[in-house]
Amino acid sequence: MKQFNIPTSRIEAFSDGVIAIVITLMVFDLKVPIGGKGTILWSDFVSLFPKLVSYGLSFLLLSIMWVNHHQLFHQIKSSNRRLLWYNLNLLFWMSLVPLVTNFVGDFPFQELPLFLYGLVFTSASFSFLLLREFVNKRHLIKDEIDASRQHKIRVKNRIAVLLYASGSFFAFFSVYISIVLFLIVPVMYFVPEHIHSKPNSNGI
Amino acid sequence: MKQFNIPTSRIEAFSDGVIAIVITLMVFDLKVPIGGKGTILWSDFVSLFPKLVSYGLSFLLLSIMWVNHHQLFHQIKSSNRRLLWYNLNLLFWMSLVPLVTNFVGDFPFQELPLFLYGLVFTSASFSFLLLREFVNKRHLIKDEIDASRQHKIRVKNRIAVLLYASGSFFAFFSVYISIVLFLIVPVMYFVPEHIHSKPNSNGI
Amino acid sequence: MKQFNIPTSRIEAFSDGVIAIVITLMVFDLKVPIGGKGTILWSDFVSLFPKLVSYGLSFLLLSIMWVNHHQLFHQIKSSNRRLLWYNLNLLFWMSLVPLVTNFVGDFPFQELPLFLYGLVFTSASFSFLLLREFVNKRHLIKDEIDASRQHKIRVKNRIAVLLYASGSFFAFFSVYISIVLFLIVPVMYFVPEHIHSKPNSNGI
Amino acid sequence: MKQFNIPTSRIEAFSDGVIAIVITLMVFDLKVPIGGKGTILWSDFVSLFPKLVSYGLSFLLLSIMWVNHHQLFHQIKSSNRRLLWYNLNLLFWMSLVPLVTNFVGDFPFQELPLFLYGLVFTSASFSFLLLREFVNKRHLIKDEIDASRQHKIRVKNRIAVLLYASGSFFAFFSVYISIVLFLIVPVMYFVPEHIHSKPNSNGI
Repeated sequence: MKQFNIPTSRIEAFSDGVIAIVITLMVFDLKVPIGGKGTILWSDFVSLFPKLVSYGLSFLLLSIMWVNHHQLFHQIKSSNRRLLWYNLNLLFWMSLVPLVTNFVGDFPFQELPLFLYGLVFTSASFSFLLLREFVNKRHLIKDEIDASRQHKIRVKNRIAVLLYASGSFFAFFSVYISIVLFLIVPVMYFVPEHIHSKPNSNGI
Repeated sequence: MKQFNIPTSRIEAFSDGVIAIVITLMVFDLKVPIGGKGTILWSDFVSLFPKLVSYGLSFLLLSIMWVNHHQLFHQIKSSNRRLLWYNLNLLFWMSLVPLVTNFVGDFPFQELPLFLYGLVFTSASFSFLLLREFVNKRHLIKDEIDASRQHKIRVKNRIAVLLYASGSFFAFFSVYISIVLFLIVPVMYFVPEHIHSKPNSNGI
Repeated sequence: MKQFNIPTSRIEAFSDGVIAIVITLMVFDLKVPIGGKGTILWSDFVSLFPKLVSYGLSFLLLSIMWVNHHQLFHQIKSSNRRLLWYNLNLLFWMSLVPLVTNFVGDFPFQELPLFLYGLVFTSASFSFLLLREFVNKRHLIKDEIDASRQHKIRVKNRIAVLLYASGSFFAFFSVYISIVLFLIVPVMYFVPEHIHSKPNSNGI
Repeated sequence: MKQFNIPTSRIEAFSDGVIAIVITLMVFDLKVPIGGKGTILWSDFVSLFPKLVSYGLSFLLLSIMWVNHHQLFHQIKSSNRRLLWYNLNLLFWMSLVPLVTNFVGDFPFQELPLFLYGLVFTSASFSFLLLREFVNKRHLIKDEIDASRQHKIRVKNRIAVLLYASGSFFAFFSVYISIVLFLIVPVMYFVPEHIHSKPNSNGI
């Protein structure tokens, strides 16, 4: 059996397709309940508000994953079959996000939907970590990439898994703690990078 | 940290995916209300007409954004992480278009749906302007691109933001003024460019 | 203003996205009416049959358009802004196919749905012809492409427009004539090409 | 008529689009039946469980097809029009997977849904085999690819067709035999390859 240097272009295109669908289609569950009446009032939109907020949060968290996915695959030399499967595993968990986003939007501030929301993001985040560890172990990263930076990102990913898992667990005690824990993930993602990127704001 | 020359190919592919979904899926909310009866009559389609018109308008406005997006990214040298986020912000607002298109189709000529319709397009258009200003400030445009032309397009974008915002605001006074203001955007987009493009019709 | 040599890659990617969504999502309207009962019988699938047939036909007709689109854009040297709009016009009409496919599936053998079905395909086919004529007039086709073959394909496209238009018109007299006319399009597409392709079956 | 060396990039992009939609949208049929009540309980999720399992299985089987598709097209030298149609035939059958996945999820352990589920996968798998045989007969595979490996994959594909067909047939006798037969496909796919890939784990 020969060795092939499989480019990552198609794995990226397929992932982009799946993530684009997942991120966009959540909005199609946002519907104002129209009961055959001819007029629409502000009060009708109130019922939509929790759904819009949960949509916004999921859009943000999935966007972070897409940016990280973009960044990681930009640094990968070549693909192989096992990489495809680590990536498909990640996409599977991401594909469940619209389901739990809806739960949270339909039953805001309830423990069960928030628990499941956290569970799906824990699984997606953990699948991302498995993908990173595989890429690292198999030396699939381009040689010119800084190894210490790679390590730092993996540490960040591990923290995200812990945050999601704790947020999921705390849903049974206090949904507010749960929500705060989920919100730390984007804060952690944005804040330190902004500080870092000051000397070199063009770097990805 | 090293500098990478990130190609824009993947940001374009992901944006194409999201915009393609947004623009196509609006049509799936167009349904003739079939009440278990065996025959369909012309009168059944009358209820569909306002939805078709609002779909057509949104298709047109989103198409203009896609063409502008295509044109802008064709001129961008290289991508970076902040560019990804400016673009994701734009995509978020575009993803809300199907929602407000449905409102307008379900409750035509009512102030609240038109206000929200305008609000989403104001936000999308403003996000596009932020993207353009960022690209301009960071000198991400290829050197061979005419700067005066870039400036003219940014001015046009600012006018579009104002038109959408005014259209949104005037919905509370007269929905007809509101609709006219929304329609000026495509007129402004098409008319002068046709005059311009005569000596050089092949340029994008 | 400088001339740019815009590659057609992004217009192809966006079109692929839209066509992939249009062609795939029709199937999501195929649902067995489950009335809360616990068992499903063969008779439940009978109601699905007309929908499956209309889905199959639309899949076939849209596939022909995609293959033609693929073939045409493979031969185009470079893109420009007007080409984008001719293409967007085509995509708009293709995006309405799921709507009319549903009508035909819900009310099989009725004149109004078949009329609208034909109308949408007439418009899509005519939009494709406009795109071809534009590409031809502006000499956007690669020089090595045989002009006589280009001409033959345009003639075929004109016949398809006529077939769809006649099928649409005849729906008011006999839905069977209408269906036969719609079926001639794929027959015309496949039969002569198979004869042609014998000496050179590898050519696209 | 001239010979063109059509790259396979667009056929891959379109297939990725269709498969990404098919694989992702199944999840949108997963909904908790909310009856206007304000609380959600664990018991509400029980009804979702068979749907989740059938979604997971279909995600897995479609993923295997995508990986095989990726692998095959990576090895194809150039495309032609007939290849497009063999591929479109495969995509048609794959597009029916969400429909039958829903049937199985709505009526778990019933013979008719499992029969149709098997039928669609038999057809998809058989279409894949036709595509492989065509590619092989026309010598579209890159010369450096090992022919014996190609042959082994075709044998595997034939076994998969038989497994799906038997699973479909046995649904009328025992749904459990049927389910076991469907599960052998992923087992057959994963197990021997893992043994094989040990000496050369980077190969696709």
